[in-house]
Amino acid sequence: MPFENQPSQNHSFTLKVPDGDNRERHVCDNCEFVYYINPKIVVGSVVTWRETPDAEEQFLLCKRAIEPRKGYWTIPAGFMEQNETTEEGAAREAREEACAEIEIRALLAVYNIPRISQVQMMHVARLREKKFAAGEESLEVKLFKWDDIPWDEIAFPSVHWALNQYREIHDRQVFAPFGNPPGTEKLVR
Amino acid sequence: MPFENQPSQNHSFTLKVPDGDNRERHVCDNCEFVYYINPKIVVGSVVTWRETPDAEEQFLLCKRAIEPRKGYWTIPAGFMEQNETTEEGAAREAREEACAEIEIRALLAVYNIPRISQVQMMHVARLREKKFAAGEESLEVKLFKWDDIPWDEIAFPSVHWALNQYREIHDRQVFAPFGNPPGTEKLVR
Ligand SMILES: [Zn+2]
Ligand SMILES: [Zn+2]
Repeated sequence: MPFENQPSQNHSFTLKVPDGDNRERHVCDNCEFVYYINPKIVVGSVVTWRETPDAEEQFLLCKRAIEPRKGYWTIPAGFMEQNETTEEGAAREAREEACAEIEIRALLAVYNIPRISQVQMMHVARLREKKFAAGEESLEVKLFKWDDIPWDEIAFPSVHWALNQYREIHDRQVFAPFGNPPGTEKLVR
Repeated sequence: MPFENQPSQNHSFTLKVPDGDNRERHVCDNCEFVYYINPKIVVGSVVTWRETPDAEEQFLLCKRAIEPRKGYWTIPAGFMEQNETTEEGAAREAREEACAEIEIRALLAVYNIPRISQVQMMHVARLREKKFAAGEESLEVKLFKWDDIPWDEIAFPSVHWALNQYREIHDRQVFAPFGNPPGTEKLVR
């Protein structure tokens, strides 16, 4: 019985192993509905811009207007929604947080954070035009040259990871996506 | 209030836009708990084996013991669980469905099926030793040479995609993961 169709129904959940399953789930006593708790996907992008083909690359960052890490800088990223693709989700986040239209070029990295059951899929993208602004979840949106990135005011470890891994491959056409950087086990387990 | 900590609580959900959100969610009238419905991740692997380094590659397939597509052949794959990484999940599925220990080499493909809000992450993997058996969800587990793969009895389109894309890169060290093959829009939207 799909939950989507019965939003106002009363559910009373008990933790038990459903028939044919091999681990405990939240099962409703009234209607057998199973509330599966699944890992969540975050989709985001390292978004770049060049004034001219020879100009130095700049990076689009958003200053967070909301907790957690309000006031700190991040790349456009957020939870993937229903009925979209990973790339559509990453483009939507750039639109919502930075009022920016982006062109996604490749998958940069897949980060696993099993402690909070999160999979982050970070992409390599370009601004389609030099047009951006603070969306509802941002205080400010700005282009930074690499040396001007406010490294001490970055919101999350994975933003560091993505920016630095991007620098390793930014002139390569074909590369395998990165994973969590070595030595970050304590942050994710 | 994390749902995980109150499994037996009664929830009565109404569809409304929570504060600070921009789309309708299922919000509990009693406790403000929000039931987010998120895309789900499937993790799987194309698993190969060679009798000797020069021998022809063989592919590990499982005959499904459960619906959907009972009696049809698939690669080891299933829903990612909480508190594991994507690679751990793919290895767990090989263990559960094929009683096999695998070594994961790379991310082969990311398939998006937005119609059912599913993201499939398929890997390239090798059997660690020639040891496998039917797990609870399998009727039979077998190694097939490429030409012997039962192409007419494959369970899902994405199994076709993964096997064929694997053939394109199986001797390459570095490659970008594939996406949905061109022309499959009707299957996924
Ligand atoms: Zn119920
Ligand atoms: Zn409640």
